[in-house]
Order: sequence, then structure tokens, then C-alpha cells
Amino acid sequence: MITRLSTLFLRTLRENPADAEVPSHQLLVRAGYVRRVAPGIYSWLPLGLRVLRNVEAVVREEMDAIGGQEILFPALLPREPYEATGRWTEYGDNVFRLKDRRKADYLLGPTHEELFTLTVKGELSSYKDYPVILYQIQTKYRDEDRPRAGILRGREFLMKDSYSFDLSDEDFAVSYRRHREAYVRIFDRLGLRYAIVSAMSGAMGGSASEEFLAESESGEDTFVRCPASGYAANVEAVTTPAPPEQPVEGKAAAAVHHTPDTPTIESLVSFLNAAHLGRTFTEADTLKNVMVKTRAPATEEWELLGVGVPGDRDVDLKRLEAALHPAEVALLDEPDFAAHPFLVKGYIGPGSLATNGVRYLVDPRIVRGTAWVTGADRDDHHVVDLVCGRDFTPDGTVEAAEVREGDESPDGGGALVAARGIEIAHIFQLGRKFTDAFAVDALGADSKPIRITMGSYGIGVSRLVAAIAEQSHDDLGLVWPRVVAPADVHVVVAGKHATVADAAERLATELDDAGVRVMLDDRGATPGVKFADAELIGAPTILVVGRGLADGVVEVKDRATGERTEVAVDDSVAHLAELCGK
Amino acid sequence: MITRLSTLFLRTLRENPADAEVPSHQLLVRAGYVRRVAPGIYSWLPLGLRVLRNVEAVVREEMDAIGGQEILFPALLPREPYEATGRWTEYGDNVFRLKDRRKADYLLGPTHEELFTLTVKGELSSYKDYPVILYQIQTKYRDEDRPRAGILRGREFLMKDSYSFDLSDEDFAVSYRRHREAYVRIFDRLGLRYAIVSAMSGAMGGSASEEFLAESESGEDTFVRCPASGYAANVEAVTTPAPPEQPVEGKAAAAVHHTPDTPTIESLVSFLNAAHLGRTFTEADTLKNVMVKTRAPATEEWELLGVGVPGDRDVDLKRLEAALHPAEVALLDEPDFAAHPFLVKGYIGPGSLATNGVRYLVDPRIVRGTAWVTGADRDDHHVVDLVCGRDFTPDGTVEAAEVREGDESPDGGGALVAARGIEIAHIFQLGRKFTDAFAVDALGADSKPIRITMGSYGIGVSRLVAAIAEQSHDDLGLVWPRVVAPADVHVVVAGKHATVADAAERLATELDDAGVRVMLDDRGATPGVKFADAELIGAPTILVVGRGLADGVVEVKDRATGERTEVAVDDSVAHLAELCGK
Repeated sequence: MITRLSTLFLRTLRENPADAEVPSHQLLVRAGYVRRVAPGIYSWLPLGLRVLRNVEAVVREEMDAIGGQEILFPALLPREPYEATGRWTEYGDNVFRLKDRRKADYLLGPTHEELFTLTVKGELSSYKDYPVILYQIQTKYRDEDRPRAGILRGREFLMKDSYSFDLSDEDFAVSYRRHREAYVRIFDRLGLRYAIVSAMSGAMGGSASEEFLAESESGEDTFVRCPASGYAANVEAVTTPAPPEQPVEGKAAAAVHHTPDTPTIESLVSFLNAAHLGRTFTEADTLKNVMVKTRAPATEEWELLGVGVPGDRDVDLKRLEAALHPAEVALLDEPDFAAHPFLVKGYIGPGSLATNGVRYLVDPRIVRGTAWVTGADRDDHHVVDLVCGRDFTPDGTVEAAEVREGDESPDGGGALVAARGIEIAHIFQLGRKFTDAFAVDALGADSKPIRITMGSYGIGVSRLVAAIAEQSHDDLGLVWPRVVAPADVHVVVAGKHATVADAAERLATELDDAGVRVMLDDRGATPGVKFADAELIGAPTILVVGRGLADGVVEVKDRATGERTEVAVDDSVAHLAELCGK
Repeated sequence: MITRLSTLFLRTLRENPADAEVPSHQLLVRAGYVRRVAPGIYSWLPLGLRVLRNVEAVVREEMDAIGGQEILFPALLPREPYEATGRWTEYGDNVFRLKDRRKADYLLGPTHEELFTLTVKGELSSYKDYPVILYQIQTKYRDEDRPRAGILRGREFLMKDSYSFDLSDEDFAVSYRRHREAYVRIFDRLGLRYAIVSAMSGAMGGSASEEFLAESESGEDTFVRCPASGYAANVEAVTTPAPPEQPVEGKAAAAVHHTPDTPTIESLVSFLNAAHLGRTFTEADTLKNVMVKTRAPATEEWELLGVGVPGDRDVDLKRLEAALHPAEVALLDEPDFAAHPFLVKGYIGPGSLATNGVRYLVDPRIVRGTAWVTGADRDDHHVVDLVCGRDFTPDGTVEAAEVREGDESPDGGGALVAARGIEIAHIFQLGRKFTDAFAVDALGADSKPIRITMGSYGIGVSRLVAAIAEQSHDDLGLVWPRVVAPADVHVVVAGKHATVADAAERLATELDDAGVRVMLDDRGATPGVKFADAELIGAPTILVVGRGLADGVVEVKDRATGERTEVAVDDSVAHLAELCGK
């Protein structure tokens, strides 16, 4: 069916909407693909819905190809299963909750682990029923604190979520690899530039996980990679190589110094280097102790925690939160300091933390035998040569220090560089978290129960539309890869003579008959308006039917490269059909 | 792709689920199509999702064919637009409401009139942009008081809703007719037996409306039709032909009689016929006055209303509610009677209603000149020969009396018969209710604004799956029409020899290559189990590959008729492909 712009429900805008900051948001609104209904909640207009369905089709094909079976869960879910796994509480404000007319509690599903797990428990019983991969492409809800960038981070969005159910870790590894390969095929087909990075699993639980990040300055995820070794990881997942331990014997004794007016690392280092101590100090020689408080999910009580990092690095709160998940983390406020007078702001050292029973976790660089300048727990005093393992003993290590470009890659392959990306997919080993919660076993060949192992695999389908737009646009508008484009060929009728309109109409019909998806600009607008809209809408090929007709030619323009080719009218349908793979 | 039962995520049940009363609910659960998650909330398992998508495809094709443009609105909607039209309040308990983390009010969309209207207002401006038909196939939510019968009346369900936007009532009539014709094509293609009935429009507002009711004993809608004339109407929409008026002159004077112990119509008629009044009375000669109270939406105050109907008929509260919509209606309770002592229970007449300023509406049969026996507003007293238009004057008529089989059809075509049906679609003239609420105008050719006229057209897509199952099943299981069936051919491997399995495998592959949708029962189960599942699942054609192989034949069984045909193995693929329209 030919899409005629004269009747298409479409209004393009010349100006960017006031609330749109990133290119995909600006262009998807300007080109009439989506419209805002409420914060983070959007409508899909005809062109947008086509792109969304095209993306969905690619995802579905590749999921079916690895034996995934599609099902569909409701979005409105009862509280009980989420209560059973603790996630009713754990999700906090991020989930939409409601009551029905009988005052029963419901939520709008943010993810469906509970439902998938319970459904498998209900339907399958024997080891012969496994392995199984189930998936759905379904609307999900998260009450984001800061919905942003249009459909890039919405509160109602479309996801493909799948789960693998296996009898063993070995079988799970196969399911995981299949998903990973399917995802590579999906994103390759969608023409995306992306990195697969090691990642923490966040609120999902589980142990191993990888994220697919579409490279984009508009992305919210910072990741690092090592160009030399190919290592890539979400910043939260970067591990810090620990230096070798050193003997404590023979180290200089710790000595407390009066260091007036040195509340900052910088002022401390200046002071020390002016104090003629016989050596030069850098910020990396100091041990900065940052105080936070943590509390376990669904508990009231906060617990103090000291975090020690080399003084030349800040604590990255997102990394700390990821490391301490699912506990909640907050910086101490003034009342907290007032309640704990042993915490001397600016001069906190391991000493008083140990004396007062405060848990103390340190950066992996702080190993046995290393000597540090740190707070002496008295105003204006620091201690020099405080040796780890001799003068203080941390309760463990924590990945809390910021990761910087130039840091050594954890695989020893060279220096890390930083990049930004949009999380488009996440695959990870769920393990037995949910099958334990619901006691999901298969009866084995030996009649013994086998606890099922799960993997979880998500793709942000609606977000992909934005991610593709982020990577594929120019100053004039969107530039869709053919596989997701709302049309293959955008025919511009550039001329007022009936012969022009007739020729365009005939070519459009022949293209349509050949299986090419055609958009025909048959409006009464000027050629200028039509060209601008064609560039903005972003079909991969633009066919201009205009003055060249007199010479028996039409113009074929490649939207991505801008390349223009004159083609004989009589050859144009065959030429375009071939271009579109028909 | 061949669907193999050895790996299909499917467990069939031999017993009906305890909570399932109607056949579609029983069979869709037993055959593994749907599973209950919460009251009125269901999951779609692989076979169910296929049927749902097949139904959806038929609806989409026919909507596209009449020029409908598909869009997609969110399900999570802000309060404001619904506040603007009064429906935030009007929906009462039937809508799911919730608050986001910022305490803003949202609802889960029960219908999307507001969004469609606002979207058209936002995108279109000129008369040249019209007419337009927009539709979506989208998940909707209603907090039903009594969700029932599985997916037949759920709280989360899939609907196709479309709206037409026209410049005039004449243009609207065209849009309405196109939709009606498209709906006829849809339901014909789905193989449904249905009636198109006149209907009240319920909470939608508007004036003209028709419902498509799939004939089924499990249906909640009672409708009547006149076999002679073809008239059909929802009971709420049946109008009562008024008899001719009569002259009041010459009628006997009204006379009050002492009628002890006659609080019921039956006792009254017996008493009168024993009282030697010179004629015989029937219940149809009496005028029964039923007292209700009504109140307008979003108001506190109740108003008394007297409803007069011939004594041989009950008041049908659903008809009365439909007639008085959007006002709320309730029967009077004891405190109401106590507060209005002029209402003498069992003996209420038009007299004291008029004296006390109570609104009084009567059945259309009560016309000027008719004489009635009715209450005299005193205990144990009735008045005989109270003549309408002489002794009392109602404030108007109301369609409140029950409709009965045998009643005369409103079109005068003969007697009505009653039937039950499932509402599968509803089309109606919305008029300017929503375009007035949001001031939606098109700029006319004469630069004057034209207020847009809307039509509203809904199809219950998920309900259709149940409606088809209700009409198409037998004692053994489901019997799907091919267009929606989860597979064309269900291949039963009936034999343990490798030659049988090999032959079935080869035929399944060839059928799949021919474009036939194949389900292959390659499980290790007994033939008995496999046959039972094939009947239960309900693919239209069953291919049995078994002992006949030795003679070079396979058996083709028609699921609907039960007819079995032996076909030569070598001819079977061609035979089946033709059967499946490939």
C-alpha cells in the first residue's frame, strides 16, 4: 500500500521542541514519529509505530531463530509474587503501585522474572521439558525519577525480555551464548555501533552480566574500554588490579604530625612538602576516608561505613552503590556527624573507626605493607607512614574509587579510554535466585529434583528506536537504516504539471507492486517543503520526479550519503527494487 | 517453522479448572492457551498468543483497507484530559487510578477518546486534512466489579479502537458505513455468527449506536430480534410502540375503592374481579408505580422519581439506567420512605407524586385517554378508571418496562424473540461531545472554523478469541477456523517405528516448505494421548501418520466435521496445501 503524504496523519515541525535536548528526541518529535503525553510517556504516530514494529520484527525473528517461544504476560500484576521475592519493597519508588476496587495491591510490571518463573513452575515438571527459552515483547513501566530524552528513558516503554531455564550451569552457558549471538545479529542487522561490556547486574540479582551499549554522546552509561586488548566494561563493573603486598617489616614507624589548616588533600600535600620530611608527597600517597551510611532493603536502621581510597581519587557514588547493592547508600549529613563526635571532619583516620567499631572498606590498591598519610582523628593532625596490615586492618575491599581514562585495564592489556553509551540490552546469569524463591525443580532421570538455573535477557525495543536515531541522523533529519525505515523510497513530486504527478503516481504504483515500501509526497506543497520533509523523515532513498522527466530521467538520492544519480524513467523501478533488495 | 510438541511450551489438562464455567474459559485453559494471573488478568501462552495475533491481523488488514491509520497511545495516562471531559469522576470504580512518585494522578486507560481527540487537535488544522480515521490495537484496563469467564470479561484486555473525524454529519455517515462494512468483513472472515443490534451508547455519550453481538449462551448481553423483519436490538435499546391516544370524553369517572390486603398486583386483580364491578380486570389494566432516586454525575443530592409501568410488567433496572444515563439510579430504601411519608408503600398513585412535586415518568403505553387501576395513596385503597390526560399528567415517558419475547417489534414487523450474545464490537456516533470539550475545529475553505464530528468504533480483540472459542468447539475441544488457528495441520505421529517418525518428519518439512503452518506431535506419548491433545488444541486439520504407511496412505481428519479421508502419502502434501489455501 502506498503511503500518501496528502492523507498521512503527519505534521512535521520546523523547530525543535522546547523540552528536547538530544538529537533523537528532537528529530523524532519534529518528524512526527512520537508525541509527548506526560513525562516519560509518549504516543507513537503512524511513522513512529512503523519503525517500532520493524525493530520488533527483527528482534522477534532472531529470538525465534534460537528457539525462543513467545508468550505474553499482563502488565498489571498482583503484589504477591513480588512480595515473595522481596522486590515489592526493593523497587522503592521506581515501581508504579495501585489498588483495585477491592483494595488489593497491584503493580505495573517493571520486569517479569516472577511471572516467568511461576509459569515455568506451573507448566513444566520433567527434566525432559528442559531447556526452554521463553520471551515476550511487552509494555513495561518504571516510575523513573528523571525520565529524559523522549523515548530514550521513558516511564512506559516496550521491552523484549526473555529467560532461559536450564538443568545445569553448563546448559545455561549454552543458552547464554545463544542469546549473546542472537543479540549480536539483532544489533548488526539494525546497523548499530555498540560495545558489549561487563556490567553489574543492578536490582536483578545474579552474578555474571554483560550490557550492550550503543555508542552515543546522549547515552547515560559511561563505560571504559581498552583499545589494545578489547576489554570493555561498564564503569560500575571495572575492577581495580591490586598491587603486590609488601613486607611490613622495616617500614618507618607511623608518626602523628600537627598539620594546621589542612582539611583538603591538596592543602595537606602542600603542607607536607613544605615540612622538610625528607621526601616528596603526592595526593596518591594519602588515604582519604569518606564516611557514608548504608541500610539493607526494607530496614529502618542506618549503619556507618568508612570508605578509604587513595587521595588522588574521588569516591564514585554510583560505583559504591553498585558494589554495596542491594543496600541503600547515603553520605553523612551534619546531624550524623553531630551524633558521632569521634568523626573529626577532615581528619578521619582508620584509628577511630576501628576503636568505635565502624566497618571500614578500602580500595584494592590499599594492600598489606603500603604506607599512607591519613587523618589522625584530631583537628589539624595527620598521621604519616600508617602501614596497612601493621597499623590498621580494613574489613575488606570495595570498588568505590573513580575510574579514569589512562587507568590500567583489569586484563593488563593497556590503558583504558572512556566512552558514553545507551544501554540497549542486558544479558545475565540469574542463577537460582528466582527458582529458589519459588522452589522450581525438574524431576531428574534418577527421580531426584534438579533446581533450575535461569538466565535473563532484555532488549529495550522502544529505546532502540531512539538509539538508532541517535546514531543515524544529520543536520537535516533522520537517516534510517532500510530494515527499520518507515518506507524504502520517498517519492517527491517536484512539479505542478499533471504529467509529473501522473509519472510519479505510476512509478509509485509499480514500486509498490514490486514489494517496495513507498511513501508518495502528493501534497500541494512547494518542492522546497517536500525536500525538507523527505530529509527530515529519513527514508533511505529519495526519488525525485520533476523537471528531468522532459529528458526521460528521474533523480535517485541516497539519504545517508547525499549522493544523487540520474536514472532513466524506464529503468528506475528495476533500479530501485534492486536497491531495496526486492 | 515447524512447531514441535516435544519442545512446545505447553501442558494440556484433562480436567476443567475449578473456576471456569463457560466452555471457552474451560477449553482455553485446558488446551494451554491462557493462564490466570489474577482475577480478570491472564497470560497468553504460545498457542494462545498465536490465535490472538491472528485475530489482530484480520482486524488490522480490514482497518487498513478502509484507510485507517494505526497509531499507539500509552496505557498509563494523566488525569487532566479525563478531568476535562468529566470522565475521571464518571468512571467511578471502573477505572484503575494511581499516583506517580510526585503524587500526580494517573489512570490506566479504559478508552482513549480524550487522547485521540487531543492528538487530532494537535496535528491537524485545515479542512483539507479531513476526513481521517485513526486506530490502535492496544491494551486496555477496566476494574470490572465481576471479571468473569476468563478472557471474555477481563480487567486487562486487548482492544482495537478507532475514531473517525469528519467535517460534517454527511461525511461522518460515510465513515460510519465504512466501519460497519469493515466490521462485517472482519467477523465474516473470523467465521462468527453474530447480530448487529441497535444499542444505547452507555458511558460513551453520543446518539446513534450499534453493537455486534456474537450469538452465545455464555454472553452477558440479552438482545431481541424480530425474525420476520430482521430487526435486532439490545434490550436497553428496544423502544415501545405507543398505542393511539383516545378521547377522554365519555370515560367513566375515577373511583376510589377500599381494597384491603392488596399490596401486590396479583392480589389486587383477584380482589377487583371478586368485587362485581361489571368487568374483568387483568394485570395489564393496572398501573404500577415504582419509586427510585436518581442523581447526576458528580453530585451529592438524590432526587425522587416515580416510574409508572403497566402492572403486568416489571421495571427492568438496566433499561431504566440506560434511559436515564448518565444519572445514577437506585431503588428507595426504608429511610427514604420514612423521610417521605406521602409515599404509601403498595398504594402509591400519580396523585400524591404530583401534589408533592415528584417527577413522574411512564411507559409509552400509558397514553392520553387510557384508564388505569392504580394506588390511591392510602393504605388498602386503589383508584379505578384513573384516566391519563384527565386525572393525571405524567412528566414524560421512559423506557423502563421489561421487554418480553412475543412483544411486538418496534418496526411493526412481528413478534420479538430473545437471544444472548457476547458484545464483540460497538460502533457509534460520538458527535461533538469530545471535540466540544477540547474545542477541535478545522479551518474551513471560507476561513471559518468547522467543529469536527467524531465516530467511535471498538472491537474487543482478546474477547474475540473467547467468542470464537464459544461458537467453535465440541466435547473434545476447540475447533478453530483456519484463519485464526495456531496451526493449519496437526501431524500426529502414531507409531513407534522409526519409519513412521521419519515419514511424519518428511511430510511436516514438505508442508512447512509449502507455506502450511505445521504442528508436529513428535513426543514419546501414546497415540491416545496425542489424538486427545490434537482434538483439544483444535487445529482445523489433523494428519495421522501411522499404520496406513505400510499401504502407502495417511489419514486426513477434518477437526470440525470429524470426517476422515485416506490419502496416498505421495499426494498428501499437495492435498493438504490445497486444503489450506496454499
